Amino acid sequence: MNSLIKKAVCIMSGGMDSTLAAYMMRDEGYEIIALHFNYEQRTQKKELESFHKICKKLNVKDPYIVNLDFFSQLGASALTDKSIDIPTGGLEEGVPVTYVPFRNGIFISLATAIAEKEGAELLVIGVVEEDSSGYPDCREDYISSMQDSINLGTKDETVLEIRRPLVHLKKSQIVLESIQRSVPLELTWSCYQSEDKACGICDSCRLRLNGFKVAGIEDPISYA
Amino acid sequence: MNSLIKKAVCIMSGGMDSTLAAYMMRDEGYEIIALHFNYEQRTQKKELESFHKICKKLNVKDPYIVNLDFFSQLGASALTDKSIDIPTGGLEEGVPVTYVPFRNGIFISLATAIAEKEGAELLVIGVVEEDSSGYPDCREDYISSMQDSINLGTKDETVLEIRRPLVHLKKSQIVLESIQRSVPLELTWSCYQSEDKACGICDSCRLRLNGFKVAGIEDPISYA
Repeated sequence: MNSLIKKAVCIMSGGMDSTLAAYMMRDEGYEIIALHFNYEQRTQKKELESFHKICKKLNVKDPYIVNLDFFSQLGASALTDKSIDIPTGGLEEGVPVTYVPFRNGIFISLATAIAEKEGAELLVIGVVEEDSSGYPDCREDYISSMQDSINLGTKDETVLEIRRPLVHLKKSQIVLESIQRSVPLELTWSCYQSEDKACGICDSCRLRLNGFKVAGIEDPISYA
Repeated sequence: MNSLIKKAVCIMSGGMDSTLAAYMMRDEGYEIIALHFNYEQRTQKKELESFHKICKKLNVKDPYIVNLDFFSQLGASALTDKSIDIPTGGLEEGVPVTYVPFRNGIFISLATAIAEKEGAELLVIGVVEEDSSGYPDCREDYISSMQDSINLGTKDETVLEIRRPLVHLKKSQIVLESIQRSVPLELTWSCYQSEDKACGICDSCRLRLNGFKVAGIEDPISYA
């Protein structure tokens, strides 16, 4: 126990973006409090497995794993409602059916409670604004406003910054930055629908593959 | 199905305040979408029972009941962690140990997802700022800021107002207003620790009893 070490609660899905964000915080000297959500998404098992492997690489002890069945109770998203197909035809205009209503708002609120309990000063989220699926809860103006809100809604001695180090990066920059920091990209998982080999055609696979292509790097994971 | 009827997602604990707030919305003509949280608090069973009875009185169909084991996983509050005693000596300065970290922030975020799915335009919370336990997530400046945040973090077509009709009321005014609107106060439950007869000495019982006393009304529930 060393209260001089600053703590960062890192929301980590097991994907490329949030993994890089956690590595960036480690490189800044923060103690990582890793937080993962099982929300009955299609690839829950694979994402949790990736999360555990990444935590091991980062030497993170006692990660928080929060089970939320709320989103499958709610439905309304292709990620949690199997009656809605995952789109595979390429990104389109507007908010896609994979949008899970206010998912990041809920994740940030739960992370805030953990940060308040742990005395952390950072809450870290790997949102990407432009080169992304267009989810409203990934926009920087939302994250920035939410930071103000959580500081008003928690104890006066709780002062939290929401760090979003990737928000203005392109996927290709995320790939290059990850390689520079020796992020184990082979352990990360991005596919929305498959747990064995990545499908390569959902929006998340397409964004990832395009990032690797533009960066001129080969993606180390297997595709169908 | 009548899309002309405006919908209000009402966060309802089964207590006096949130019940009055729901009645106020009903009197304004809103369709009530009732939302209750089981979060493994000490009086979970009693609160849920009260909630169901109140929903029946309000003719609310298909209420949302969300189970969250997160807070007991987190601990850190006397309401969800049985190793911490409920204070019974009267309200003191500062944030009490019954504070559940960012509970209302988490409740509002989950309610936002429901409101977005249901196309509701109001989210209603029975927070009371002054005549209360002093929880930071009951302050109006927090609620107001959170309203801005959720509108930035949801779809552009989702426009939500967070209504907090009791925020500046005294408990005695809440009692009088409830009687005027025929709110079934006998069905509401406020005690933090007992499920049979209310203890009368926890902060929540003290605030409630004082409200009735100042209003010159007898509380219809039984005390130990």
